[in-house]
Amino acid sequence: MATIRDVASLAGVSVATVSRVLNNNGYVHEDTRKKVVQAINKLDYKPNAVARSLYKKTSKSIGFIIPDITNPFFPQLVRAVESFFVEEGYTILLFNSDEELEHELKILEIMESKYVDGILIVSNTIGKDQLERLSIPVVAIDRVIDETIPTVSIDNYHGAREAVRLLLKKGCRNIAHIRGPENVYTAEERLKGYLDEMKAHGLPTYVYAGNYELKISMLTTMKLLSENAGIDGIFAGNDVMAVGAIKAASKLGITIPKELKIIGFDGIELAEAITPELTTMEQPILKLGRKSGELLLKLIQGEPLNTQHVTYHAKLVERNST
Amino acid sequence: MATIRDVASLAGVSVATVSRVLNNNGYVHEDTRKKVVQAINKLDYKPNAVARSLYKKTSKSIGFIIPDITNPFFPQLVRAVESFFVEEGYTILLFNSDEELEHELKILEIMESKYVDGILIVSNTIGKDQLERLSIPVVAIDRVIDETIPTVSIDNYHGAREAVRLLLKKGCRNIAHIRGPENVYTAEERLKGYLDEMKAHGLPTYVYAGNYELKISMLTTMKLLSENAGIDGIFAGNDVMAVGAIKAASKLGITIPKELKIIGFDGIELAEAITPELTTMEQPILKLGRKSGELLLKLIQGEPLNTQHVTYHAKLVERNST
Repeated sequence: MATIRDVASLAGVSVATVSRVLNNNGYVHEDTRKKVVQAINKLDYKPNAVARSLYKKTSKSIGFIIPDITNPFFPQLVRAVESFFVEEGYTILLFNSDEELEHELKILEIMESKYVDGILIVSNTIGKDQLERLSIPVVAIDRVIDETIPTVSIDNYHGAREAVRLLLKKGCRNIAHIRGPENVYTAEERLKGYLDEMKAHGLPTYVYAGNYELKISMLTTMKLLSENAGIDGIFAGNDVMAVGAIKAASKLGITIPKELKIIGFDGIELAEAITPELTTMEQPILKLGRKSGELLLKLIQGEPLNTQHVTYHAKLVERNST
Repeated sequence: MATIRDVASLAGVSVATVSRVLNNNGYVHEDTRKKVVQAINKLDYKPNAVARSLYKKTSKSIGFIIPDITNPFFPQLVRAVESFFVEEGYTILLFNSDEELEHELKILEIMESKYVDGILIVSNTIGKDQLERLSIPVVAIDRVIDETIPTVSIDNYHGAREAVRLLLKKGCRNIAHIRGPENVYTAEERLKGYLDEMKAHGLPTYVYAGNYELKISMLTTMKLLSENAGIDGIFAGNDVMAVGAIKAASKLGITIPKELKIIGFDGIELAEAITPELTTMEQPILKLGRKSGELLLKLIQGEPLNTQHVTYHAKLVERNST
């Protein structure tokens, strides 16, 4: 395999000149540049990524920390991020953290030692201090960690209010909320939206704990329907829990949407796979992924951001469950 | 941040000696080793992963090529692989190939330049020549590429026969098969199993093209049910297509399992999320991931494999769709 020395020798220039051409920095005369490029092509020389990263303290890789790829929200996000960065010549190091702080800190340490160029993170557990002491640019996705950390997320609060308003418009008056896990940013915002919208109409609230998981939500729905006669609507904190609620209703012989209307949040593919198809507040997952990539790339390239926080709106998608 | 020179200086030894201790190779006297370790701890020295990989031509990373993370089969596989390798101190570079050969070849080139220590691949498009010319160990998962490439997969052929046998046992006689995409290894094996089992019972066969996708399968099911009166069973080539078949039946007002019985293949989480819950041939996805990690690690460490091909059996899981 050709080395940088072979290229320099064939082009009749120094190794340092070849390096300047490769890294596109420092002055190189146009004729010289051409000679070097010809030599590179002739020898089919491939600069070694590892050697380059040692020299430049960059590895053309992005570390991406997510809670759990088996949560159906994340595969679409990961694809969107990957396809953005592949176009830009970066590879993705993927880590599932289960949102355990200790594990997250270990991952950050690995990333530092591998010179990742930037970090994307979805986390509720990590703090801004732990991110700011890194010398690596960071963009948070989906969950706001701190005002000082650039973030791409959606407006969960107003999305939740809109979800509840749809149920009200459809005639529901006793609307329960199956909430996501405590201290998870998205779950807390959606809960707030539910409570404020119900209070604005002077209606009673029914909040039940869920964990963004299907089975627990199914059991919770059975409990909430048996404990409260007359529940005619459920706003589930995410689509996965809404699917659990639909399963519970089906087991109890309750007809959807006639006797009970259900709306979810997220817009994952599962929402369309089930019967009845789920009405939901759809997140622009591809946009979230792409925009977070754009922000991170700007930070890596040392460009200023126009805005630290980009917020999208969830879109109401009406299907058969309401 | 402490460097290897600081460690050497504090321990009163040469940089080469520190390097021998770090890499655990070459002779170092036990007293000297202790001094070096104390100096490392005292200075909180962290060997730089990039410098180490340049020196050792290893990066403690694994490249993992899958067709598409948004196909619900892969998130569970990726987690299983990641959790195995994280324990062993490796990171995962994830790539979605869409099974486009050109893209796969580009990914392999990137992996070489990054000194990945090993490659895991799920692919129908890549050939053994393209893998064998690499100087990196490779293990194929889910799909057999060639006898010479170590592979972890399941017995799709006999799994398919067992799926059809269940429908026969439940009284079905006109069983249709919605097949997976042409030239995809798993799809061809499952088709063969269906055809052989039906022929063994002297029963007619009905094969319709699917693409491992939900929507196409839904349309295909509508077509097959309208073209063939008396279809009483459907063996779908994967769970995602089985869910599409269930949706079609529901739209046509056909009762499952009374009028039509449906069985899938894979055992993804979606199979349990829908109503009626799907009977399926469940793959041991976690075992597939873990075992392929074990084989690859052995190859990386230069150990011999007891067997080149590990084959698991799919397990029949009966639910409400049959």
